[in-house]
Amino acid sequence: MPKQVPIVLTGFGNVGRAFLKLAREKHAFVRERYGLDLKIVAAFRSTGGAMLDDNPGAATFAASPDLKLETLPTWTPGLRLVDVLDGSLLGVLAETTPSNLKTGEPGLGYMHAALSRGWNIAAASKGAFSVDFSGLMEAARRQSLFIKFSGATAASLPTLDVATISLSGAEILGIDGILTGTTNHILGRLEEGLTFDAALREAQILGIAEPDPSMDIDGWDTACKLQLIVNAAMGTGLTLGDLAVEGIRDVTPESQRSARAEGKILKLIGRMTRDGDHLRASVAPIAIEASHPLYRVHGTNKGIAFFTDTMGTVVVTGGKSDPRGTAASMMKDIINIYR
Amino acid sequence: MPKQVPIVLTGFGNVGRAFLKLAREKHAFVRERYGLDLKIVAAFRSTGGAMLDDNPGAATFAASPDLKLETLPTWTPGLRLVDVLDGSLLGVLAETTPSNLKTGEPGLGYMHAALSRGWNIAAASKGAFSVDFSGLMEAARRQSLFIKFSGATAASLPTLDVATISLSGAEILGIDGILTGTTNHILGRLEEGLTFDAALREAQILGIAEPDPSMDIDGWDTACKLQLIVNAAMGTGLTLGDLAVEGIRDVTPESQRSARAEGKILKLIGRMTRDGDHLRASVAPIAIEASHPLYRVHGTNKGIAFFTDTMGTVVVTGGKSDPRGTAASMMKDIINIYR
Repeated sequence: MPKQVPIVLTGFGNVGRAFLKLAREKHAFVRERYGLDLKIVAAFRSTGGAMLDDNPGAATFAASPDLKLETLPTWTPGLRLVDVLDGSLLGVLAETTPSNLKTGEPGLGYMHAALSRGWNIAAASKGAFSVDFSGLMEAARRQSLFIKFSGATAASLPTLDVATISLSGAEILGIDGILTGTTNHILGRLEEGLTFDAALREAQILGIAEPDPSMDIDGWDTACKLQLIVNAAMGTGLTLGDLAVEGIRDVTPESQRSARAEGKILKLIGRMTRDGDHLRASVAPIAIEASHPLYRVHGTNKGIAFFTDTMGTVVVTGGKSDPRGTAASMMKDIINIYR
Repeated sequence: MPKQVPIVLTGFGNVGRAFLKLAREKHAFVRERYGLDLKIVAAFRSTGGAMLDDNPGAATFAASPDLKLETLPTWTPGLRLVDVLDGSLLGVLAETTPSNLKTGEPGLGYMHAALSRGWNIAAASKGAFSVDFSGLMEAARRQSLFIKFSGATAASLPTLDVATISLSGAEILGIDGILTGTTNHILGRLEEGLTFDAALREAQILGIAEPDPSMDIDGWDTACKLQLIVNAAMGTGLTLGDLAVEGIRDVTPESQRSARAEGKILKLIGRMTRDGDHLRASVAPIAIEASHPLYRVHGTNKGIAFFTDTMGTVVVTGGKSDPRGTAASMMKDIINIYR
């Protein structure tokens, strides 16, 4: 008998919708391979929610192209997460709401509500962790629950798994990461001679950069991911404010040219360095040499290098960055919670 | 209170000795970080064994430069693994004996003995798995025990963790690996114009190749690792005989030159391809293009690329290949068994 895994989804943007589709597409595979029966029982957006489990339209819903929760017969304006968590069901909250980095809401409230009711968490949103990483971890620990966030830390690129599982027993002496595909793409175009404004406009037209690109190009997306990776890897409780963050607005084709003249290339690097037990985490454009393990991470690709005492340098690159890749990393976390 | 983890070590060559040293060096760190008190209670070589736990000389022993088991007061010629496994202790067998790929011994007997007495396994040796992968997995499953073998599958390069944990829920459509540092180094020297014989002699002088290099250059080292990675990743029970294996003896500086003329480079690739549910695993020198994720894995470095349906291509490179790196990967497996 496969184990039933009820899932409640918060947030119904690109990632939330991709997750719903993927859960349906992979249902048989996950049941056969891992013995898990993943079931999305409800989905929420800010204006309300819909029960999916007993809804006869739910099966075809995930396959429909527009995927509007409001079209479901069970759509209930004003329905809140806590209205459905109170019950005998225990499962996983799949959190995908847009991040507010200052308040952490609405994800922070959702996650604490879920943890206090015995639900595990697989999150793709970053805001709640930026604001209250230690509080969330402590709440999960008290309840012996899992709180996983691969979807918030470069998604299909397995940054957290490698840091917390593959490097067990080694001391991580330093971390360098290219964690934002958008900025890496723009820096590559600057290297090819485009101005910053032209490269940014192009990226927006291609859908690589957001209409409001500041989260990426001012370094905050990288900073959020780095904060989470460092905390998970090193057992620390850094907040976003502990990081020195510089974006790529001041990088010019000329600065890329001078870097190249020295055989280097400017990349937006999220970096953790250590001086004994003192950690420093920062985000800045850095000219790295050809021998650097991330030198050839081009375009929208991402990568991370862990420098260790006993295992040498371990480097991971690749991993899909689109909503489907993020959804896949959330599904991975859910599977690993129950294995 | 830290959890006691008794460890029995079989094999006392480079890897076994490195493991003993590392376990001592990391004892305090592992206890503090993971709450595990790793204790090597006995070590065996083919001629006998020595109890280490209650031995007053054991602490200084690990720090001594020659590390000969026979110098310990508890050394007992003819002492066998089964003599110490019968008791109330349960822990981990750390298996590092030299591999016989035909019989799987002595590792195969050691592992079955350990499993039947309720001990988990962290192995660095390959022979037993080449001969009886399915039997060992089934024995572990029946007893709900862990059998881990990172040390046999490219050591600090986290091939298995990524395949079995980070890619959970994704379908692995293909795998390409550069899994043997020795052959990769030799192929690099051929690319620089050396003949095969000169490159091999040089590698032997540098200690990169063994005095009997056939295991590496005929492709069997890569084949053993690929067999294990594919079985772990895909849930199959391939034996070594199921792989088509070709080594690098016939590669010449000319073949590297022709590859380069087409913008390619010859690498010894362990490859898994799929046609639906039909898997094919093979080892052969293959000319890969500059866009291939392993094109720039040079020298004694290793790397592996997983091609997936939902997560794109995930690539891991680096990881120390020396006995200390292998020992570190065994320690990682032991920590992850008990977390």
